[in-house]
Amino acid sequence: MKLGVIVLAAGKGTRMRSALPKVLHPLAGRPLLEHVLDAAVALGAAQVCVVYGHGGQQVPAAFPEAKATWVEQQERLGTGHAVLQAMPAMADMDRVLVLYGDVPLIEPETLNRLVDDTASTQLGLLTMQLDDPSGYGRIVRDKSDRVLRIVEQKDASTAERAITEVNTGIIVAEQASLSMWLGRIGNDNVQHEYYLTDVIGLAVADGVEVATTQPETLEEVAGINDRAQLAELERYYQRGLANELMLGGATIVDPERLDVRGSLLCDQDVVLDVNLVCEGRVRIGANAHIGPHCLLKNCTIGPGVEVLAHSIIEGATVGAGARIGPFARLRPEAEIGIDCHIGNFVEVKKSRIDAGSKVNHLSYIGDAEIGAGVNIGAGTITCNYDGANKHLTQIGDGAFIGSNTALVAPVSVGADATIGAGSVISRAAPADQLTLTRAPQTTIPGWERPKKRER
Amino acid sequence: MKLGVIVLAAGKGTRMRSALPKVLHPLAGRPLLEHVLDAAVALGAAQVCVVYGHGGQQVPAAFPEAKATWVEQQERLGTGHAVLQAMPAMADMDRVLVLYGDVPLIEPETLNRLVDDTASTQLGLLTMQLDDPSGYGRIVRDKSDRVLRIVEQKDASTAERAITEVNTGIIVAEQASLSMWLGRIGNDNVQHEYYLTDVIGLAVADGVEVATTQPETLEEVAGINDRAQLAELERYYQRGLANELMLGGATIVDPERLDVRGSLLCDQDVVLDVNLVCEGRVRIGANAHIGPHCLLKNCTIGPGVEVLAHSIIEGATVGAGARIGPFARLRPEAEIGIDCHIGNFVEVKKSRIDAGSKVNHLSYIGDAEIGAGVNIGAGTITCNYDGANKHLTQIGDGAFIGSNTALVAPVSVGADATIGAGSVISRAAPADQLTLTRAPQTTIPGWERPKKRER
Amino acid sequence: MKLGVIVLAAGKGTRMRSALPKVLHPLAGRPLLEHVLDAAVALGAAQVCVVYGHGGQQVPAAFPEAKATWVEQQERLGTGHAVLQAMPAMADMDRVLVLYGDVPLIEPETLNRLVDDTASTQLGLLTMQLDDPSGYGRIVRDKSDRVLRIVEQKDASTAERAITEVNTGIIVAEQASLSMWLGRIGNDNVQHEYYLTDVIGLAVADGVEVATTQPETLEEVAGINDRAQLAELERYYQRGLANELMLGGATIVDPERLDVRGSLLCDQDVVLDVNLVCEGRVRIGANAHIGPHCLLKNCTIGPGVEVLAHSIIEGATVGAGARIGPFARLRPEAEIGIDCHIGNFVEVKKSRIDAGSKVNHLSYIGDAEIGAGVNIGAGTITCNYDGANKHLTQIGDGAFIGSNTALVAPVSVGADATIGAGSVISRAAPADQLTLTRAPQTTIPGWERPKKRER
Repeated sequence: MKLGVIVLAAGKGTRMRSALPKVLHPLAGRPLLEHVLDAAVALGAAQVCVVYGHGGQQVPAAFPEAKATWVEQQERLGTGHAVLQAMPAMADMDRVLVLYGDVPLIEPETLNRLVDDTASTQLGLLTMQLDDPSGYGRIVRDKSDRVLRIVEQKDASTAERAITEVNTGIIVAEQASLSMWLGRIGNDNVQHEYYLTDVIGLAVADGVEVATTQPETLEEVAGINDRAQLAELERYYQRGLANELMLGGATIVDPERLDVRGSLLCDQDVVLDVNLVCEGRVRIGANAHIGPHCLLKNCTIGPGVEVLAHSIIEGATVGAGARIGPFARLRPEAEIGIDCHIGNFVEVKKSRIDAGSKVNHLSYIGDAEIGAGVNIGAGTITCNYDGANKHLTQIGDGAFIGSNTALVAPVSVGADATIGAGSVISRAAPADQLTLTRAPQTTIPGWERPKKRER
Repeated sequence: MKLGVIVLAAGKGTRMRSALPKVLHPLAGRPLLEHVLDAAVALGAAQVCVVYGHGGQQVPAAFPEAKATWVEQQERLGTGHAVLQAMPAMADMDRVLVLYGDVPLIEPETLNRLVDDTASTQLGLLTMQLDDPSGYGRIVRDKSDRVLRIVEQKDASTAERAITEVNTGIIVAEQASLSMWLGRIGNDNVQHEYYLTDVIGLAVADGVEVATTQPETLEEVAGINDRAQLAELERYYQRGLANELMLGGATIVDPERLDVRGSLLCDQDVVLDVNLVCEGRVRIGANAHIGPHCLLKNCTIGPGVEVLAHSIIEGATVGAGARIGPFARLRPEAEIGIDCHIGNFVEVKKSRIDAGSKVNHLSYIGDAEIGAGVNIGAGTITCNYDGANKHLTQIGDGAFIGSNTALVAPVSVGADATIGAGSVISRAAPADQLTLTRAPQTTIPGWERPKKRER
Repeated sequence: MKLGVIVLAAGKGTRMRSALPKVLHPLAGRPLLEHVLDAAVALGAAQVCVVYGHGGQQVPAAFPEAKATWVEQQERLGTGHAVLQAMPAMADMDRVLVLYGDVPLIEPETLNRLVDDTASTQLGLLTMQLDDPSGYGRIVRDKSDRVLRIVEQKDASTAERAITEVNTGIIVAEQASLSMWLGRIGNDNVQHEYYLTDVIGLAVADGVEVATTQPETLEEVAGINDRAQLAELERYYQRGLANELMLGGATIVDPERLDVRGSLLCDQDVVLDVNLVCEGRVRIGANAHIGPHCLLKNCTIGPGVEVLAHSIIEGATVGAGARIGPFARLRPEAEIGIDCHIGNFVEVKKSRIDAGSKVNHLSYIGDAEIGAGVNIGAGTITCNYDGANKHLTQIGDGAFIGSNTALVAPVSVGADATIGAGSVISRAAPADQLTLTRAPQTTIPGWERPKKRER
């Protein structure tokens, strides 16, 4: 059985009040539409066709790697019309599933169930039970519980309005039948639109039994129309991710204050304190502890690492047992060795720092190769940029860099060398020796302090 | 019709456990009483009179600009007595509305409705429906649904206790009638207090029909008696603000983690990441992105600006396309030009930085005028204070300040000048040239590292 | 009456997915078991015996100061067997209460009530009412409302399944009777375990009336089986703490964003802004204000202190009226005097700073004694470590340290001395005088800027 998936993603999304097409708004860091495309892939769809419209080329351009056919709906004439645009792309499919670019959290298991439940009939429909069904199309069934039709709110009788089973809009249908029904849909309604929903009535009229199934949660089939709804689904999604992480063996101090936008892999007994934000691919080793108010992005944190409060780690790797922060910032290509200490108000960028070295206070380390067991004093700065080019600073194992030192790259400091505090090192400092720059200390006789100006 | 508003604000607020009078406690950054005064202004009240008591002069002193009459209730003899104190100030009014200084979220629309609904009668009462009415005065009505009286919990029969419509305390009355009824209220009760509520019974006895209306939400009429209730209303208020911002076109990643204390204006497609705190007047331009854990206070952020995590911007302006942070702090009178970069552990105070300039790392810029296209190296410090006075640092367009430089103000650096790393610049540095201070680098022969002391 | 308490703490806690025994996982910063041991102490237990098993010696080793007997359950043969291991330690007790190491929030008042209610009988049982009792052992009572037996879910009839009163597992029993009943429990069940619950049936068969009482809240008797449940109870506990603090006179801007792991004492009118994390013993004086996103650990904050956003204070004391932060870090043994200002990107460690002194920007102060009225310029660093030993920096009252200064300890600066900006001070600087190191400022004629390299 070859399953094709059509994703409707042409809507304007007026209530988003955005220059960005609705389906490109991110949920957990990824566009809404990407969530739906991922669901289609997870289903093993043989063919995916996205119908876009509002926002034009911006939509397909946002998914350069998606294995999908893109069809533009040039006139917005309703969902039935939108699906019709995609049917040519479905010619080789046995069945066709219709999804929505603004219904991002649909679960592949639910869709598999829908597809399976409809194996013996030409049409399946995903429905849901709502405590308050107002506004939704109700599922009208006969005495044998067979679907008769969908009746919209405005057309529903009092009895029909009491029905709590409603339409989600998600259908699966035998491909040839769907084509036929779509061809028979009319636009004889107030808005002169072609409604996909009308397929149900046509199928029933043809004697087709409509199979139905329901999602596990209502959030799966929740559509996003404004940013308040987007925020609600974001929170729902984050709660789900947090729950999975906890059941997998990570402690999350407050699951309501964790944001994962991408993938977060935690080994056993990782502790995530409050307000962590993770972006991209983050991997955290066993027993690592991430303090409050941290950001991790595309990084690998080794086992037993302690990341203290208010630290930002992006594009870096941190070796086992290291201690980072508080108030530390590791930038891309920072490679921190095992048991290193990177302390407060320290920035490290594109630098390798080997095992056990310490940069504890108020320093900028950029474009540097620092050996093992090095101690970098407070206020040390690698002057890596001369206004035109970046240059390398090399520091040998066991070196000691006095506080408030400027290392004017390209420059090297030998193994076990010592640099005197407050120096500006612009030539190689030999191993084992003390090197420094230091003007003589003088006290000015008779000097008087400035006085506060009158104003 | 001239409407007068009396605000009762004399209560002690014992359960707040505070030296601050209850009505001065802030909600969303403004005193409770200020919210009520604003509602009175929004109603178009011709006269506002606040009855204060507990905390004495502290209360009126907190509102130097309020157009209100302040009357002190010297003895605390009940709400009826309190209103009576304010009646002289209402002499020219047609009708009088009674509000409460500790019921901060009352909506002007609700009050307008109350006033309108009572246009044809002398007395109107705001009531509310509670699932659990215990503790509240129940609204007893006759068979024709006319209000008969308010019965307090302790005096209520079993049938009356089942009534779920209760008194909010907010009334509007024809001025002369109210004066008359207030004069007839007695204090023949356990606490020997004069209760405003008794006005209802007197009016009904006089054959007056009491009009009633209800608020949209219960939070509108919620009174604050302790700090837990204050926190609840704070959260309710913040959720409302967040919702408005989202429907207006701003993305808020987590509406439960946004605090706005003042006014926040967001142009379209602004993104606010988690834990933002805004104070005072904040304006954010289109497509700007505010990262996690930031503070904005009385500032203007241009379009397309990126404020990275953990940044604080107060009293500053940031030009379009600039990038601020992470860990940046802009202080009052910082004017950051378009496309500037202000990086980590950088403080800028009372300084103008022109287009495209960069201060990326660990710097203090105070009392400076910095041109366009300037690069300020890591660890640069403007020494603006000599212990008595502040002095100016001027840096021309295109200058390059080497890292770890101290600029001893008053001092100037010419356009396109370069300053060598680690310099202390205390005299004007000419344009286009390299200027520096640098002691010679020496290596000390035979020097030995200090040894760890025995303890 | 001598009350003994047995705490069952031998379970594996498989669903925690942890190398740490379940009862050692922290809630509000303390192991689950510690909460239970504290409840036992609060009850005035004459004898406490903990039955441990999974995790072995790790469990008792985590409580070196607990006044408890530790008994290892070497085979895990059920709760009845576990209690039996502890009975020898209870030989001198009159009554025995059985608690659980993974039920951390049980209230001493509830247990006192249970013990009191069972004064006249040999067995008492804590039960609870659940809306959805599925999975729990139901309390079956006779027509006189006397407990007959506990029936497990799988053995329950339809009528029994409808019972909403269920077993919490917490019992109190006359010691000798309990011993006897425990000896009669069998393991004739699917899992071949000895169930403590069977004691109920044996007691009823002996004609004993089983007294029951119920907890105030369900959270009190909630057991923790996985980290999601742990996070839920953590939040419940934190909400309770926040509520107590608010009713005691502290303003908490968002009670859902406060974490207290230890004890937090707030004097009147303290304000705690969002996302505060407190650890250990923290005391905050009247009218102090703690800004957003701060961490306080084992510290004392004086009255009227203002801690600005993003500050970390650990093991330090802060004098009245001081202003700390934003982005400040006070480390252990920092003693900040009254009215001091410690500003952004400043770290203070093991240093005394006297009244009114200021360290406002980008500085590291370690191992220093700083007098009153001192002004420490931006970028000042105490070079306290020579690679082997830490040394002291002493600065007299009224001194002014120019920006970007390195103070090479051991070193002293006299009272009212001034240090020129950018100096490296390695010998004593005399009082009242200006001392500095400064290389001459030179401009290099004919110098040209480096050019951007081709790549």
